[in-house]
Amino acid sequence: MGWSRVLAGFTFLMTGGVAFADVTAEIGSKALSDSWAYNFLGDLTSEIGPRMAGSPAAHAAAEWAKRRLQQAGFDDVHFETFPIPAWTRGAESADVVVPSKQHLAVAALGGSVPTPAGGIEAEIVLFKSIQSFLDSAPGSLTGKIAVITQRQVRAQDGSGYGAIVGPMRVTGASEAAKRGAVALLIRSIGTDNHRVPHTGLMQYAKDAPKIPAAALSNPDADQLERLAAKGPVKLHLSLASELRDKAEAVTVVAELKGREHPEQVVLLSGHLDSWDLGTGAIDDGAGIAIAAGAARIIGQLPERPKRTIRVVMFGAEEIGAASKPYAEGQGERAANIVVAGESDFGARKIYQVSLPAGAGDSPFARQFAAALVPLNVDMGHQPARHGGADLEDLQEHGVPVVQFSQNGLDYFDIHHTADDTFDKVDRAELAQNVAVWASFAWLAADGDVDFRALAARAASK
Amino acid sequence: MGWSRVLAGFTFLMTGGVAFADVTAEIGSKALSDSWAYNFLGDLTSEIGPRMAGSPAAHAAAEWAKRRLQQAGFDDVHFETFPIPAWTRGAESADVVVPSKQHLAVAALGGSVPTPAGGIEAEIVLFKSIQSFLDSAPGSLTGKIAVITQRQVRAQDGSGYGAIVGPMRVTGASEAAKRGAVALLIRSIGTDNHRVPHTGLMQYAKDAPKIPAAALSNPDADQLERLAAKGPVKLHLSLASELRDKAEAVTVVAELKGREHPEQVVLLSGHLDSWDLGTGAIDDGAGIAIAAGAARIIGQLPERPKRTIRVVMFGAEEIGAASKPYAEGQGERAANIVVAGESDFGARKIYQVSLPAGAGDSPFARQFAAALVPLNVDMGHQPARHGGADLEDLQEHGVPVVQFSQNGLDYFDIHHTADDTFDKVDRAELAQNVAVWASFAWLAADGDVDFRALAARAASK
Repeated sequence: MGWSRVLAGFTFLMTGGVAFADVTAEIGSKALSDSWAYNFLGDLTSEIGPRMAGSPAAHAAAEWAKRRLQQAGFDDVHFETFPIPAWTRGAESADVVVPSKQHLAVAALGGSVPTPAGGIEAEIVLFKSIQSFLDSAPGSLTGKIAVITQRQVRAQDGSGYGAIVGPMRVTGASEAAKRGAVALLIRSIGTDNHRVPHTGLMQYAKDAPKIPAAALSNPDADQLERLAAKGPVKLHLSLASELRDKAEAVTVVAELKGREHPEQVVLLSGHLDSWDLGTGAIDDGAGIAIAAGAARIIGQLPERPKRTIRVVMFGAEEIGAASKPYAEGQGERAANIVVAGESDFGARKIYQVSLPAGAGDSPFARQFAAALVPLNVDMGHQPARHGGADLEDLQEHGVPVVQFSQNGLDYFDIHHTADDTFDKVDRAELAQNVAVWASFAWLAADGDVDFRALAARAASK
Repeated sequence: MGWSRVLAGFTFLMTGGVAFADVTAEIGSKALSDSWAYNFLGDLTSEIGPRMAGSPAAHAAAEWAKRRLQQAGFDDVHFETFPIPAWTRGAESADVVVPSKQHLAVAALGGSVPTPAGGIEAEIVLFKSIQSFLDSAPGSLTGKIAVITQRQVRAQDGSGYGAIVGPMRVTGASEAAKRGAVALLIRSIGTDNHRVPHTGLMQYAKDAPKIPAAALSNPDADQLERLAAKGPVKLHLSLASELRDKAEAVTVVAELKGREHPEQVVLLSGHLDSWDLGTGAIDDGAGIAIAAGAARIIGQLPERPKRTIRVVMFGAEEIGAASKPYAEGQGERAANIVVAGESDFGARKIYQVSLPAGAGDSPFARQFAAALVPLNVDMGHQPARHGGADLEDLQEHGVPVVQFSQNGLDYFDIHHTADDTFDKVDRAELAQNVAVWASFAWLAADGDVDFRALAARAASK
């Protein structure tokens, strides 16, 4: 892109003596009408589609993203690769065979072992709550398919997910196996009523047999509840899946090098990998589009901000593997990160931001709060506690994190399903996210805020 | 059910001298709090599930419905069977192979021939409108997969369906074949944005090769539009399906015999058969639940109305075959039908009724309009033109029809998809339908309205 066009887009910089706050406001305003992030997301989800960590599609996505970031004018675009186990879904089916033949919509949970060839046919034991499942005695499920149908509560902050995902999806199979079950079916962890089951990661305990595990769509879970209330229900379940021990995940990194303190880094992130059923639009194509889109707005300024802005598209969030490789053995890297944030909760509007502990009533907070007013976002009263799954290890290394709360009321209607497609993303809502992140990144990168010092001061009070 | 309980439910009849209008009002009121229809629908869709005409499940559904209707106290419950062709879906898949490997959600259209074993791999030619497809020259699609992605318009009266279903779904394959195409994919005729394609009947012309035809889910049609805008797209399509020439369809008939004019019939109907993907809750388990539920309310009265109320659960609406067998060679039967109606547009509230031509300002219309006020339904100004697909041949035999317009704004989000399940039905909305039909049936069956005479009088004016 030529300078004349850049300058036309940023006329405020030509007038001289423009206040910092005016620059921030214009960045926010420009982001609201910018379509780069929306187009990035549309093209990624169309040209590449699903991109499971370790798959050929994930590698293609990394190459694709690299080209896009280079075209967008980032200074340094490179890969960081690391070894992961890679799981691949195969053919899968579930059918009621007693009391009447009916097809059920299921999806294997990520990491599930396959059923034996020919599948499993067994009676179900249905639990309407996690607690009643956990209360069942060892041996009580011998030879049965355990079914848990507790329902996720819809909440704007997505808290209904965390409330049940652990015992149902992550550890449910091993708990069922300890009680003798031959397979586990769970109601999808999701809030929709469509016949598109929600997949997601599960894990096996070391002290239990590995049994296959899958999610039923919500209507299918309802159906089993109704049938189980009337009498015995027998299912046939067939899951084919494959686990490779060694695959390669790719994290894509791009930077705008700081003009004064290039070693000091404001890190914006999301994750490039997605589940296999949808095309990863809201999880998390949107997140990387927002992070890169926000940085790109700043990259269009005639000069770089004082500090470096780094965009990280993590390569293996969905299998819980992206965080450690990025943080490990990188004490120095972590120490140089001024602040980090991850966008990984869809594409709806941000309604609240939470700054690192101790920053709540700093000059930075006041500047940022002013920039948020036209974007209709509140400054939260609580410090950020969790910056994102991929930032957990950086947080452990002392990196301050921010959290930008998006409206997640319908996030779990789509999350981890075949329905996670580009048509679900609203252009204006996505742009509002870009504007919030761009405003934040600009203020943090062109200023001198020291979140670690603010935290230390607050803690010493 | 004992008389004491019936009488407790209909105390108005014990007081003597109660006005006709009061009985109608109490029937409506009782229907609003009655749960028989809702339970009928829940049990049918759970215990039987999908029930394609001619399938073992359809026969099981007929036996099931017969038992339910007998338990509900109908005087005469019997089957009418007739021969039909029966089509069975097989395994089906579609994948983008160029520019990148991606799975698409598709469903074969009902009646489609299978692809050759191993499937078809071909480039697509994508048309965003039916007109541009029809404008394409003979031979211009040779060796290609034709894709039509015109979108159904959402409308309360469902008019967006009729506007496009003919040329896209019903006759599209033969038009594509005449232009040389090897297969047809259409955007689902539906208004949702989920990855659950909408099936439905298609038909082959005699003067074109039979090529396989399937529907893409709306998000998948969007995806192909985006990809086709960027360059060549090649798909692999595989459909297995089977057509049996001879199967048996079953229509279930139940009656409340009229106490004075048993030969005069008020006919309430819906259809028992459903597509195979969902469990046929809104199409049309709801319709038969409403028709039977309305009649049952009247059947609980201490005495039968003057005329017979007949409930017909047609056995093959989805393949367009139920109408003729019921009407054909039955001139006398048709002549004795006072009026007929079919509920076949889901389970949302009725907002308007249309009476047979000429009945608009009759005493009957005034009585019925009064009964509709507490049910929040308007009397329409236009006469009923179409009573329902299964009543078309009766209409041709001169049978007057009524039409009760339901809110269909979201009907085509679900229609003919795997999402057509019981959880989509609202108990109170279903009950309002039962109340409207029960009020109508009572007024028509216990009065002496003669719709043919009213029509003749209006025509002679």
